[in-house]
Amino acid sequence: MRTIFWENGIRLIDQTKLPEKEEYIHCKKVEELIDAIKRLAIRGAPALEAAGAYGVALACFERDFKSLEEIRNHLIFEAEKIANTRPTAVNLSVGVQRVLKKALNGSSIEEIRKFALEEAEIVAKEDLNRNKKIGKNGAKLLKDGDTVLTHCNAGRLATVDWGTALGVVRSAIEEGKNIKVFACETRPLNQGSRLTCYELMKDGIDVTLITDSAVGIVMRKGLVNKVIVGADRIVRDGVFNKIGTYTLAINAKFHGIPFYVAAPKSTFDLQKRSEEVLIEERCKDELLFCGTKLLAPKETRIYNPAFDFTPINLVSAIITEEEILFYPINF
Amino acid sequence: MRTIFWENGIRLIDQTKLPEKEEYIHCKKVEELIDAIKRLAIRGAPALEAAGAYGVALACFERDFKSLEEIRNHLIFEAEKIANTRPTAVNLSVGVQRVLKKALNGSSIEEIRKFALEEAEIVAKEDLNRNKKIGKNGAKLLKDGDTVLTHCNAGRLATVDWGTALGVVRSAIEEGKNIKVFACETRPLNQGSRLTCYELMKDGIDVTLITDSAVGIVMRKGLVNKVIVGADRIVRDGVFNKIGTYTLAINAKFHGIPFYVAAPKSTFDLQKRSEEVLIEERCKDELLFCGTKLLAPKETRIYNPAFDFTPINLVSAIITEEEILFYPINF
Repeated sequence: MRTIFWENGIRLIDQTKLPEKEEYIHCKKVEELIDAIKRLAIRGAPALEAAGAYGVALACFERDFKSLEEIRNHLIFEAEKIANTRPTAVNLSVGVQRVLKKALNGSSIEEIRKFALEEAEIVAKEDLNRNKKIGKNGAKLLKDGDTVLTHCNAGRLATVDWGTALGVVRSAIEEGKNIKVFACETRPLNQGSRLTCYELMKDGIDVTLITDSAVGIVMRKGLVNKVIVGADRIVRDGVFNKIGTYTLAINAKFHGIPFYVAAPKSTFDLQKRSEEVLIEERCKDELLFCGTKLLAPKETRIYNPAFDFTPINLVSAIITEEEILFYPINF
Repeated sequence: MRTIFWENGIRLIDQTKLPEKEEYIHCKKVEELIDAIKRLAIRGAPALEAAGAYGVALACFERDFKSLEEIRNHLIFEAEKIANTRPTAVNLSVGVQRVLKKALNGSSIEEIRKFALEEAEIVAKEDLNRNKKIGKNGAKLLKDGDTVLTHCNAGRLATVDWGTALGVVRSAIEEGKNIKVFACETRPLNQGSRLTCYELMKDGIDVTLITDSAVGIVMRKGLVNKVIVGADRIVRDGVFNKIGTYTLAINAKFHGIPFYVAAPKSTFDLQKRSEEVLIEERCKDELLFCGTKLLAPKETRIYNPAFDFTPINLVSAIITEEEILFYPINF
């Protein structure tokens, strides 16, 4: 199962339909990709890196161009639109910039198209390879019999394949270790229940679903002994990740449970500090409705940040494709 | 708006229908009441105390009895059934026992009925009075301009009226203080969004809804400066309350934010320690579905405790109708 690939345009699994339906979307226009990213049909920082990369390639093919200047201007314009679709995960913009830079080296419309698509395919392939390396590195931190608590979905569906946090679990299991998972449902969009449970069960990995607020009790009862999450952006002073990660990290600290972040180096944005990063706020309907069910009075004021920030001193280690950075982490 | 009252049987607002419909259930049989308690049509420790009390009264009227012995045996039998409907909140059983004891003093069928109903009405009336006292005591802890974070629903709908945690907010506002509220949605059954937002907005109290996992970020950003929750059972070493309370208390401790529990003395069960109390686990459908929407693969293993335990050293104060017990609390 590959989350995103190129086949006469971009094909991506529609994650809003999971777990009920396994359905692919076919994007032939950049607008369709942007819509898919906004609706979270594709999400997860590394998957967005590939989406950004393929998105620039798509811009090369979405219409006929009369001149080199026209395609170049179009690419620059579309690249910025794609990169700004979601502000918090840095990887989207990393993927966009990388393919844009390569494509602009082309000296003909055909060469620009060729360069863009080739580079996008490399970005996607690299993601799979680096996830396998993250998995291998991270597996060293897991012992036979461990139970890992994870938040949101940092698995196959958040990447091109294999996953970051869940890639670590997969690699440890591949090495013959018996590893179980507890998954937080991850409100308001339930990526934990809809995506993490789905992909782990598909692989026959033992997973138990809990509400986000049950992290305290499962730690206190000793039902989990490690936490591994992904990341949307790692800055000098800490980690941006799905809302709830910080709440979870505080609970891990309180219980003396290691709190690991698994992410590719492209997630690092070490020129920045946390106060310079915008936390995306999403629409109130995400909390007002679940499917068609109304959960609160329609006029309710809602604060719905999609991410939170975990200070670096709460992080026991960051697992990358190159190395493991251990606490205390000084970049 | 009264949550539960007697009018030719028990009338109670069906909280599973809120916020969409304000609908009362009319229980003429104990079985109907038990079903309403199980479905959480009525919930909240103090409201369950009244429900238990009225339930024993209802048992007196649900059929004709031929002898004093018959009604007494029936009451004893039904009382136990009602009290065992939910195991964690102590108040249900307190209400049941109180009316049962009084009723059994009756020397005729008529007198038993009269005693039972009178005592149940006293229990209900006392709840309102003690909530007003809890409110008045707790209001001393709130300053003009405070924003209170609360979890689940410890308001009018969790009591006969006024509320415990939200009663404190109401009393402080009544005294002229400007108090705002942040409400955790409280998964899996969303009592925070469905009930707390509903009843506060109905009273014109400023409330903002967040996901349970956002407690960390709202504390870090200084959006709240006090936490007040209710309680289902207070034992020598801590507090049982809605799942997520412990996770929240750890976050409050980490951020140096006072964590208050507001509850009537009937919630105290000081002969017991935490290990003697059963935490109710509820069915997996609560996490699998939201309305008709499927949130996880149907075969997903789920751990769904309805409550958690917060050790007493995380509690800054317990507000009762008699007094405020301050940290460090030694009963």
